[in-house]
Amino acid sequence: MSRFDEDLASLVSGTVEMTGLVAQSISRASFALLHGDLELAEAVIAEDDRVDAWQWTLDDQIISMMTRHGALVGDLRKLVAGLRITADLERMGDLARHLAQVTRLKYPEPVVPDAVRRHVESMGDVAERIAFKTGDVLARNDSRLAREVDRIDDEMDRLHRELFTVMLSPRWDEAVSTAIDVTLIGRFYERFADHAVNVANQVVYQITGEDPDRVGGPGLPPV
Amino acid sequence: MSRFDEDLASLVSGTVEMTGLVAQSISRASFALLHGDLELAEAVIAEDDRVDAWQWTLDDQIISMMTRHGALVGDLRKLVAGLRITADLERMGDLARHLAQVTRLKYPEPVVPDAVRRHVESMGDVAERIAFKTGDVLARNDSRLAREVDRIDDEMDRLHRELFTVMLSPRWDEAVSTAIDVTLIGRFYERFADHAVNVANQVVYQITGEDPDRVGGPGLPPV
Repeated sequence: MSRFDEDLASLVSGTVEMTGLVAQSISRASFALLHGDLELAEAVIAEDDRVDAWQWTLDDQIISMMTRHGALVGDLRKLVAGLRITADLERMGDLARHLAQVTRLKYPEPVVPDAVRRHVESMGDVAERIAFKTGDVLARNDSRLAREVDRIDDEMDRLHRELFTVMLSPRWDEAVSTAIDVTLIGRFYERFADHAVNVANQVVYQITGEDPDRVGGPGLPPV
Repeated sequence: MSRFDEDLASLVSGTVEMTGLVAQSISRASFALLHGDLELAEAVIAEDDRVDAWQWTLDDQIISMMTRHGALVGDLRKLVAGLRITADLERMGDLARHLAQVTRLKYPEPVVPDAVRRHVESMGDVAERIAFKTGDVLARNDSRLAREVDRIDDEMDRLHRELFTVMLSPRWDEAVSTAIDVTLIGRFYERFADHAVNVANQVVYQITGEDPDRVGGPGLPPV
């Protein structure tokens, strides 16, 4: 194993640990949201500093690897993907924090009305699953597994649409503030899953040099 | 001027042009939103492919610069900041597209009710101003100018809070679907401005090596 591969392995285990932290945050944030647990919400908000610190540390490690090793294009591609992965994980941590902040803001009022409780609960489960799956993709560096992240994201999108369907049904009879909260909560979960897809796409890019996001794009450079 | 500085100048003018495109998109998206202009909304949605293509081209240019030039840490710092800047600009383009997509989805119904029309109009103006200011920061590489981006973002945050105040006032008497739309529109504008702040912070990082985002953080690495 070359020095670069050793450093890369340490980097990967760092991103896997960061993903574990994010998975824990979204799981706790969802519990706090559904049960009005202020203490747990505060813990999620405080823990987000640790997620941020992980990004700084890993990014510094990546930049230092860029200087230490020769500038081989394949290595650089992996390192650049690494920078994007830490940015997405950091953002997933922010979204868990946003959920906890909604919980805190409304405390002791419950945030999630009964009409969408089941949907929000499912979105929380799916978010946790996609975070753990993303950790697997990183740990096993497996592009086939990355497609499973896409499938979990499809579930999230379906739940997100259902959430709106419930809110727009004639039976919905909640305060405007509840409609605002549920709209934002839905958006936070949906973005959380989108960032997980980005991470998985970056793993594919590291392996194949192809970014799945680019497929279907115009393909024509603007300059 | 060294070869690196020449390449960097071309990169900077690329990001400035990309910012101009994003500024145009948000300006058009705001007009389309307020006037129910479907044709303009479609144009914004189509143009987002060009924003994406800019990111791919500039990122390729950055990665190729990383390989061509020696791996000096100061140069790498600038290039890494460049990757983050293109990612934020790309996301700003997405948010302009989201606004256009709301317009398209509701057409021919108007999206913005009279009660918040003035607020949404102001958020559109502020978004356009912050995009142009961000272009200035990039073009002039000026960290003092970067602080003005922060001040414009404060205006956006104030407008965002006011939007909620109007929606939560007893006089608000709109359909749930309108509350959902206005909540999302407010969020899109607010995020647009946040990404502009990120770009400005990256310019500061390129100049000083200090990321303003890190200030006030825990400062302790997690490993």
